[in-house]
Amino acid sequence: MGLIGGSLGLDLQAAGAEVRAWVHRPQTAERARARGLAQRVSTEPEVLRDCGLVVLALPLDQLLTPAPELLGALPAEAVVTDVGSVKAPVVAVWTPLVKGFVGGHPMAGTARAGVEAGEAGLFQGRPWVMTPTPATDPAAVEAVWQLAEAMGSRPLRCDAAAHDRAVALISHLPVVVSAALIAAAAGEGGGAVAGDAEAAGEGAGETGELARALASSGFADTSRVGGGNPELGTLMCQGNREAVLAALHRYQRELATLTAAITAGDWPDLRRRLERCQAVRPEFL
Amino acid sequence: MGLIGGSLGLDLQAAGAEVRAWVHRPQTAERARARGLAQRVSTEPEVLRDCGLVVLALPLDQLLTPAPELLGALPAEAVVTDVGSVKAPVVAVWTPLVKGFVGGHPMAGTARAGVEAGEAGLFQGRPWVMTPTPATDPAAVEAVWQLAEAMGSRPLRCDAAAHDRAVALISHLPVVVSAALIAAAAGEGGGAVAGDAEAAGEGAGETGELARALASSGFADTSRVGGGNPELGTLMCQGNREAVLAALHRYQRELATLTAAITAGDWPDLRRRLERCQAVRPEFL
Repeated sequence: MGLIGGSLGLDLQAAGAEVRAWVHRPQTAERARARGLAQRVSTEPEVLRDCGLVVLALPLDQLLTPAPELLGALPAEAVVTDVGSVKAPVVAVWTPLVKGFVGGHPMAGTARAGVEAGEAGLFQGRPWVMTPTPATDPAAVEAVWQLAEAMGSRPLRCDAAAHDRAVALISHLPVVVSAALIAAAAGEGGGAVAGDAEAAGEGAGETGELARALASSGFADTSRVGGGNPELGTLMCQGNREAVLAALHRYQRELATLTAAITAGDWPDLRRRLERCQAVRPEFL
Repeated sequence: MGLIGGSLGLDLQAAGAEVRAWVHRPQTAERARARGLAQRVSTEPEVLRDCGLVVLALPLDQLLTPAPELLGALPAEAVVTDVGSVKAPVVAVWTPLVKGFVGGHPMAGTARAGVEAGEAGLFQGRPWVMTPTPATDPAAVEAVWQLAEAMGSRPLRCDAAAHDRAVALISHLPVVVSAALIAAAAGEGGGAVAGDAEAAGEGAGETGELARALASSGFADTSRVGGGNPELGTLMCQGNREAVLAALHRYQRELATLTAAITAGDWPDLRRRLERCQAVRPEFL
């Protein structure tokens, strides 16, 4: 009953479904009830009995090591899906455990969290990725597809590993790229090598003060996701480590190519590359 | 009479000053007159005669190789300042040429350009950097300081090289960092090495298509300045090459440090670094 679970509860009820919620803490249950996030909210696993569709709206670490109590509470015939931001390891864990499992990732905003965060219409117009395997029951995929459509999402299906590579590039890589920018501008990161006075000391000196005084919207935008929730950023890198590292290596090659053009003073080459960036970016918007 | 010159003309007239503009093309003069950007607009250098303060609102390349016609037209006793985004090379060129020169950089938005771009209030609340040398006439600095204040700017003075290092970090580095992100996500940059099928081919394949379909506000923000005006980005790197390269090396160290934490799976270290980014970023906003 956090941002994703709570928002689902509101929209599902609005769509006419009966929604039951199993939560861990009595305090959360109380707030979920007060906010009307589900018709029934309980701290007892029995609340899931006879549910036809179960959405595991859990943090990635709990998805990767499911509690035995949770596994025991899932109805044998239920379609089960999750909302984790990394898919291959989740699919690997759940496919052998639950017959009706379909990996899922509704890509909605994550700035807010907790039982007060859920809101109506959160999934409207946003992608909802499904990552069935060749062995997944087509009826289960269809059920999750209908859920996504009922929430106003744009459902799409793809291979779990392809999903993880794509989100590594457009969601996880930006966090690392942006965090390194903040660290470089602040001049206080651990990247400084001994004896490198410029890197080690400038952050606190005239350049660092000036950088803080002169930073404007370009720095603000480029640094936004790097200055976001540290726990979320860490979980993304942890859960999608291989794809994030591959994306970082790809990024470092591109950065090295641009740096080489500047080092060589090859301005036509740099300009051509920036023109290509300007031309290709709208494909992502 | 572009974004900066036109905006200055509007605000200076509103502040009660007599403004004259020298422009290159008759067509520009006509539009500047129609928009009321100055009381007198001319394509003849004689229009500058008897001006007490001259603002060189020219692109960086024209500031670095001033036209003899311009040098001949500057009144001998005038205070002269510029608006270039890089200061050390401009100060080096102009200080020996003009007695009353003071390097300047009003840091206002640059998304729009040309004679239609000027707008009232552009400098309101924005920094206006002055970079006098020890030999600069204090009365000239005072004149430019008053100009900045009259425009509603926050005037500040610093060393030209310190300015260039600071804007390299917070303005020019983000462009390169952000452009490399677009190139990595698009998977079509020149950074791919031969035989690296993932980097060379994925952009056009399933990962590339998915990345385009799934990119959201995080990617949009982090890629914004990298997808901006290629000519401006190239001129920034060209004009501030040494400081941009130093900033890039600093950045690459920070990126390598974060990459090392992910490679090692040292999640407490990564989390601590992201926490530091989250904590320090507001100092730049």
